[in-house]
Amino acid sequence: MIADLSVTPLRRIQNDKGDIYHALKCSEGSFSQFGEAYFSTVIPNEVKGWKKHIKMVMNLVVPEGAIRFVLYDDREDSRTYGQFYEVTLSADNYCRLTVPAGIWMAFQGKGSALNLLLNIASLEHDPLEAQTVSLDQYKYDWSSK
Amino acid sequence: MIADLSVTPLRRIQNDKGDIYHALKCSEGSFSQFGEAYFSTVIPNEVKGWKKHIKMVMNLVVPEGAIRFVLYDDREDSRTYGQFYEVTLSADNYCRLTVPAGIWMAFQGKGSALNLLLNIASLEHDPLEAQTVSLDQYKYDWSSK
Repeated sequence: MIADLSVTPLRRIQNDKGDIYHALKCSEGSFSQFGEAYFSTVIPNEVKGWKKHIKMVMNLVVPEGAIRFVLYDDREDSRTYGQFYEVTLSADNYCRLTVPAGIWMAFQGKGSALNLLLNIASLEHDPLEAQTVSLDQYKYDWSSK
Repeated sequence: MIADLSVTPLRRIQNDKGDIYHALKCSEGSFSQFGEAYFSTVIPNEVKGWKKHIKMVMNLVVPEGAIRFVLYDDREDSRTYGQFYEVTLSADNYCRLTVPAGIWMAFQGKGSALNLLLNIASLEHDPLEAQTVSLDQYKYDWSSK
């Protein structure tokens, strides 16, 4: 696991008329502040990334489909410098991924239909606050299962 | 339209690898404070409700499927006292429904598969802060299209 990253199991509460899924409460340790909530989708097998935020903390939840997240740590002072970390979130592994600023991330659609991600971000979207590089920049085997 | 209720059209940004959908920014007028974000689902044709929050402001977005929301105003000092308001949110009518405290709400699954609702609520869930009554309490024709 990359330093400062966290994966928190979340509850899905069964209900005869339709289930409830937790995402984030303000009293939880994963919460810093609320800037913006938005959805991103990723079509099956496509990969979005790499992107790194300079200031934004992301809280990521996948309520539908399955998404593989790959994180890469290029922080020179980090004890996990140079490491990758992979986690796939879905209904079967319903967790919140909390990504601090300064970590590279890319993600891939792994479900066969809608792959839906909610980001509850600590800041509003600001293109000046993020860096992007091509997927080739940090080699990863996206063809694996 | 019931007094103090609002429906705000939101952007869906097309992207070859998967679209982005806005939900809520902290700088928007619909935002008061962040208490909790959670998902609720409602199976096709089922209705959840009625429920009224005493303090919570709800910001509701439907990223997948379609959900019919019906609101009922029983605030005696309201200029829309005794009125119902209906709106169906979906990909085709992608809006944010902002519901102040004190309004009764029930909602019905109108899509044929997953009907998914995100609530970005101003408070954490607290059963003491909400009232529920049976669906019979305020008569509405849920069988209509």
